[in-house]
Amino acid sequence: MTIEAKLEEMNLTLPPPPPQGGVYQSMLLVDGHAYFSGHVPLLPDGSMMTGRVGEEVDLEGAQAAARQVGLCILATAKDKLGSLDRIKRVVKLLGMVNCSPDFTQHPQVINGCSEFYRDLWGPDLGVGVRSAVGVGSLPGNVSVEIEGAFLVD
Amino acid sequence: MTIEAKLEEMNLTLPPPPPQGGVYQSMLLVDGHAYFSGHVPLLPDGSMMTGRVGEEVDLEGAQAAARQVGLCILATAKDKLGSLDRIKRVVKLLGMVNCSPDFTQHPQVINGCSEFYRDLWGPDLGVGVRSAVGVGSLPGNVSVEIEGAFLVD
Amino acid sequence: MTIEAKLEEMNLTLPPPPPQGGVYQSMLLVDGHAYFSGHVPLLPDGSMMTGRVGEEVDLEGAQAAARQVGLCILATAKDKLGSLDRIKRVVKLLGMVNCSPDFTQHPQVINGCSEFYRDLWGPDLGVGVRSAVGVGSLPGNVSVEIEGAFLVD
Repeated sequence: MTIEAKLEEMNLTLPPPPPQGGVYQSMLLVDGHAYFSGHVPLLPDGSMMTGRVGEEVDLEGAQAAARQVGLCILATAKDKLGSLDRIKRVVKLLGMVNCSPDFTQHPQVINGCSEFYRDLWGPDLGVGVRSAVGVGSLPGNVSVEIEGAFLVD
Repeated sequence: MTIEAKLEEMNLTLPPPPPQGGVYQSMLLVDGHAYFSGHVPLLPDGSMMTGRVGEEVDLEGAQAAARQVGLCILATAKDKLGSLDRIKRVVKLLGMVNCSPDFTQHPQVINGCSEFYRDLWGPDLGVGVRSAVGVGSLPGNVSVEIEGAFLVD
Repeated sequence: MTIEAKLEEMNLTLPPPPPQGGVYQSMLLVDGHAYFSGHVPLLPDGSMMTGRVGEEVDLEGAQAAARQVGLCILATAKDKLGSLDRIKRVVKLLGMVNCSPDFTQHPQVINGCSEFYRDLWGPDLGVGVRSAVGVGSLPGNVSVEIEGAFLVD
């Protein structure tokens, strides 16, 4: 089954590729590695999932934001690569949570993206290395930002 | 035109390569990828551009700090590679802003470096992927720290 | 002398490989690069070195935490690679310190890991590029998290 058929089966629709928010490329392909800029949880209507986790946003809301970032990265991948089936594996994610200083559940938040990728590509190819940390603030007060690298054909 | 002639045309002078601030190499070349340690906005007189963005430093000052970090990375590149003309393209920047928790304009800050590189190498080769985030604090209270990777000959 | 004999000579014992804390692989090998997930200072008894640096933990305690993270990364490497002698060099470390907003000695903290690796592999192969920054919070309130990349055979 193609990855896009699998997305459909999961009742997920790719949002439009995120618009440019600065002087960067959203994805760059170098020697079979697709590097992704830090992506934010953009919704199809153009709004962003915002708010500080642990204060304005609870764990479940933060996980939903992380999963939405995962979808936005795929939207960029589809736009830049032509097909999601060119993706061979997830190599690396850096998950940054906009949270209060006493927040401690960063891995659980970023699991929102990681579990989605695991379900999409399986527990080997869909799961790479990862760091999950709490940053002091994020652009536009979004709740989660994730950058990553995939291997592609 | 060589990159150094272009820097001169832009009225920019490379600062001396940053001194070592810990147990790391400022640049490491592996398989054609030049990886740069997190660089800080060091001025030619040895002082650093410090202060928390959104409190002690405004957007314009933060952009100037990001651009100065961009120059410091080039000073390291020139020192380690011999010539800036060996740089083929910008691959990745991770821009970390030392800012107040309510600051939201991280991409605009890091544009201070990214626009400089775009003007130097053009909108394709000078622009790679990027994340721009707000950290809780930075070494010596500098306003901006940026790490990066370039492709080189 | 093998790296494991050298560890013994340094009176250091590898802790057990860290258990999984989320949906990620602790190490992934791609084209001779071993990428490590963000590791935390886990002690052999299963407890973690926690507390905010600059408030609850002083510089010396934070350096000890960074060194412990360095050991935990090696425990993962040994578990995944079979032997630490497959490691050719340190390429990159990203050191994240859970500290108060006015903390400024991040490089000195991460030196706790970097000096250990330098002593283990020497000042060339044991020392790569590095960023050292202060994050807003870390999983489980650990004091230090470090991710990294090594070249391996």
